[in-house]
Amino acid sequence: MFEGPIQRLIDELARLPGIGRKSAQRLAFHLLNAEDADAQRLASAIVDMRTQVRLCNRCFNVTGAEECSICRDLRRDPTLVCVVERAQDIVVIEKTQEFRGRYHVLGGALSPIDGIGPGQLRIAELKHRIPNEGVQELIVATNPTIEGDTTAMYLARELKPLGVRVTRLASGLPVGGDLDYADELTLGRALVGRQEI
Amino acid sequence: MFEGPIQRLIDELARLPGIGRKSAQRLAFHLLNAEDADAQRLASAIVDMRTQVRLCNRCFNVTGAEECSICRDLRRDPTLVCVVERAQDIVVIEKTQEFRGRYHVLGGALSPIDGIGPGQLRIAELKHRIPNEGVQELIVATNPTIEGDTTAMYLARELKPLGVRVTRLASGLPVGGDLDYADELTLGRALVGRQEI
Repeated sequence: MFEGPIQRLIDELARLPGIGRKSAQRLAFHLLNAEDADAQRLASAIVDMRTQVRLCNRCFNVTGAEECSICRDLRRDPTLVCVVERAQDIVVIEKTQEFRGRYHVLGGALSPIDGIGPGQLRIAELKHRIPNEGVQELIVATNPTIEGDTTAMYLARELKPLGVRVTRLASGLPVGGDLDYADELTLGRALVGRQEI
Repeated sequence: MFEGPIQRLIDELARLPGIGRKSAQRLAFHLLNAEDADAQRLASAIVDMRTQVRLCNRCFNVTGAEECSICRDLRRDPTLVCVVERAQDIVVIEKTQEFRGRYHVLGGALSPIDGIGPGQLRIAELKHRIPNEGVQELIVATNPTIEGDTTAMYLARELKPLGVRVTRLASGLPVGGDLDYADELTLGRALVGRQEI
């Protein structure tokens, strides 16, 4: 146990996910020995993020404004909407530079065990967007997990009647991967989803 | 790239040692979704630590007061001083509950390659403590590395003439370790330092 202020910082850092007591201690001493401006900037960044970040009114992406920069971008195709579980997923898809539509952040995936039903996700908001924005295709990019798959199936069943096309990201072997290391579920999906060359 | 405030927080977190971009992103989103009080407490803990923590006037341990709680503790033996490289090391030794003397934090170890000579360490301060506090034994607990060993040798040569006993922590096999996994240097030291049973 260290004295007062340094122990309090170690305790706070150790509450963060993936940071153990040893890492928390190393980080605290790093901050103790860092430039005054560096430590101050980190503290301010935390406070600023909490006060300034809000969710986009349209797609629920994190933003500093009423609507996120993607929804504000007039060059993006409003008829194509990619549905993701979390705001973090948007950045990953944007990096591919293959998608020019808008997004919709559900805020999770259906998981009866965790008590997450359709009411806990932003499905009603998505439903409203379809007629309002003239959406023609929903690309469901939830995770390739049981919860993600269930959510995709639910969305297809609920939203297809509104006249929208619902598609799902392809599942299969990762590029650069090795067949030897593929698990049977992934390999099974790659087989079912095989494409003519 | 995320928008303004969240990206700034990710950037600041990624500057911390051992935190990569992916971890920084996970931490930032954790703080975004955390209770307001939790995020605020972490920010305050950083600022408080910077404003309140100072170094003990006597041993240079981190403290919130003029002298650290160990130096203020009258039950500790002032004639026995354990010399460590960093303040963090004190906690590790305290946990053994085997040491009842005081400490002295050097602030590093001698390392000519990194430009750390005796002038960069708190050796002069240690020298002053020997007559002032009637120190009879210095236990040098620098790390069992080339730098730590060099520092120990240097301290022995410089401080023995002042009439103080200088000892070094034993080096050898870790308790619960396996001979098979011991490196030859450690095993060599364990042989040299063998004790009669």
